[in-house]
Amino acid sequence: MSRFAWKVIKKLKNKNIKLGIISTPHGDIETPAFIFCATKGALKSFSTEDAKKNNTQIILSNTYHLMLQPGSSLIAKHGGLHKFIGWEGPMLTDSGGFQIFSLGYGSVADEIKGRKSNSKIKKTLLNINEEGAIFKSYIDGSNLLLSPEKSINIQRNLGADLIVVFDECTPFNVDKDYTYNSMLRSHKWAIRSINAFNSKLKYNPKEGSAGPQEIYGIVQGGIYKGMREESIDFNLNKINTFGIAIGGSLGSNKEEMQEVVSFTASKLNNDRPVHLLGIGDPIDIWTFVEQGIDTFDCVSPTRLARHGSALVKGRNGKINLKNSKYKNILKPIDDRCLCYTCKNFTLSYLFHLFASKELLALQLLTNHNVFFMNDLMKTIRDSIKEDNYEYKKKEWIES
Amino acid sequence: MSRFAWKVIKKLKNKNIKLGIISTPHGDIETPAFIFCATKGALKSFSTEDAKKNNTQIILSNTYHLMLQPGSSLIAKHGGLHKFIGWEGPMLTDSGGFQIFSLGYGSVADEIKGRKSNSKIKKTLLNINEEGAIFKSYIDGSNLLLSPEKSINIQRNLGADLIVVFDECTPFNVDKDYTYNSMLRSHKWAIRSINAFNSKLKYNPKEGSAGPQEIYGIVQGGIYKGMREESIDFNLNKINTFGIAIGGSLGSNKEEMQEVVSFTASKLNNDRPVHLLGIGDPIDIWTFVEQGIDTFDCVSPTRLARHGSALVKGRNGKINLKNSKYKNILKPIDDRCLCYTCKNFTLSYLFHLFASKELLALQLLTNHNVFFMNDLMKTIRDSIKEDNYEYKKKEWIES
Repeated sequence: MSRFAWKVIKKLKNKNIKLGIISTPHGDIETPAFIFCATKGALKSFSTEDAKKNNTQIILSNTYHLMLQPGSSLIAKHGGLHKFIGWEGPMLTDSGGFQIFSLGYGSVADEIKGRKSNSKIKKTLLNINEEGAIFKSYIDGSNLLLSPEKSINIQRNLGADLIVVFDECTPFNVDKDYTYNSMLRSHKWAIRSINAFNSKLKYNPKEGSAGPQEIYGIVQGGIYKGMREESIDFNLNKINTFGIAIGGSLGSNKEEMQEVVSFTASKLNNDRPVHLLGIGDPIDIWTFVEQGIDTFDCVSPTRLARHGSALVKGRNGKINLKNSKYKNILKPIDDRCLCYTCKNFTLSYLFHLFASKELLALQLLTNHNVFFMNDLMKTIRDSIKEDNYEYKKKEWIES
Repeated sequence: MSRFAWKVIKKLKNKNIKLGIISTPHGDIETPAFIFCATKGALKSFSTEDAKKNNTQIILSNTYHLMLQPGSSLIAKHGGLHKFIGWEGPMLTDSGGFQIFSLGYGSVADEIKGRKSNSKIKKTLLNINEEGAIFKSYIDGSNLLLSPEKSINIQRNLGADLIVVFDECTPFNVDKDYTYNSMLRSHKWAIRSINAFNSKLKYNPKEGSAGPQEIYGIVQGGIYKGMREESIDFNLNKINTFGIAIGGSLGSNKEEMQEVVSFTASKLNNDRPVHLLGIGDPIDIWTFVEQGIDTFDCVSPTRLARHGSALVKGRNGKINLKNSKYKNILKPIDDRCLCYTCKNFTLSYLFHLFASKELLALQLLTNHNVFFMNDLMKTIRDSIKEDNYEYKKKEWIES
């Protein structure tokens, strides 16, 4: 008997804003929720113990990075990622597709967020064919294949609660035909992923497992509504997954991104939780919660912290603690914030830590940003419960 | 009424090994104790909250670094270092002398540990005279004077419980005459330091204070027993301090260092706690506890952690977690260790974090090393209480 469940607790009248619970063997996730990125099995400058203490519900790790180092069978020998990294709560792993194609094309991460990048990242993607994607390991230079079956087997070994079908993350600057063919291939890969997931044979239990898992499909189709509809139909009616993620290119600017997400999310039922990949800006989160998104993930809260930026309420959304204007400010980042960092340290101290290149700066600021994101999601959930969503959103944004 | 006190609880028969308590307004320190270095107001990759959780009794910060950045008056405006850095326990500040002369000569830190160094550190010491030392700020290149009065005023502003007289940290490779004249100057500086400490006028209460403080004298005299005796007499009979530190050059090798410390400590009464500057090797600590040392400080436990070394019991004393032999080891650093890191993570995971350049590696390893040092000191104290010092020492070293 699976201990997985998705339940919509409340939906605002005439709106797509909803409160839900994703149940997993490692605990419940109250939605809307934010998923923090422990890409290589660590939240960079932050322990899983501190993540828990700061109300984190769920973290994700990365098939692509972990298959290269330390390898998924070593993690399986530990009894799965949960034990390897010391995290007892719910976890998700992505399929590795995003990273292969992102690192492969060198700039897809920027493109799907609508930025045109001149990234000089060395391209490691060697070939895509029906079987899968062949790429060069950034660890030892060897050529590797990642296929739907391999991705799922790796995710089985890693043992996260929630896993994702293997897809091609189509870049923005390809033509409509490429996007369509890529979508069709990703659909075939989704079927193979689910077959692998359902097949006991594909999974070697000797390598260890963290227990039962559930799988997410991914809606493709780029910025083309017709294709999005076709992919939604595929995901809702042709395959049976626990959840659905909105993937592929979301366009070249924020308006296009909102249109793609809004259109796609509105066509999805409420019978599966909906994940939006790679979004972490607080104002975007308010926007996409309104469009029916249940979970988000992004590296931004922890990455911004490492670069010296503290998340704050309001339209600007962040302040840069390396700015010398904070040198003599004897107040915390936000005197209403209840995080460890704000309760104990001034902007002046945090500025000093960055000026002195003390690693503690990164940890304290990550602490604030993690607490902040979890507090944002709780504010959103409470406002749905208390029927004052618009008021709370205004209060947050105009803070 | 001062809340400071030094009490010898127990002294082993026919030995200089003793158990004591240093009471301060911020709490008691059970001795023998280890003092961790929060040089610039942070334990590098470790929070004061975690230091507390790992049984840390006392930390120290650095007059020299903090006067340059962020400046002691800014810290005074916070109400002192305790509030600035979020540490409620006992604290010590050094006088800045060691750093000025260490950075000034470029290699004194190595020399007093008996290593001959070819350090290429840029020399910043410009001039030493009766007034004090003139040096170049490494922050903005300005020329600054540090005198006994300035050092004490800065330490008043910083507000640590225990502060130290300003001295010249005489390098090893100077001649006997230089050492003698340097000692005499340091004695004069000690008198001026104590006068400044006792003078209310020198201290501007408007700049803030963390409350009452006590001061340590420093025994000089290099490797020369006659000079050591003269400096001991000066410290015991000519000035009145709360504690005594053993400073100056301790020789060019470990045997010489032990002889200097043993000779010096044996001449000191038990009426003041005795601090040995800059020693952190566990086997050295057992040795020097036997010679009558009550407190130690060293950057090594936290620095070793940042370089990938975990402290372990036994003669070798440490293991390097970056060594690929740990890649597949599913056991913790020490399966008897009760620290957070050992209770939750394998050598394999820690190796993975270093291989992946995850900052969490430094934090988790610092956690182990801080716990380890505090556990070492507790083992020593318990063995004194339980009259099984030699047995426990053998058990530790042959572990």
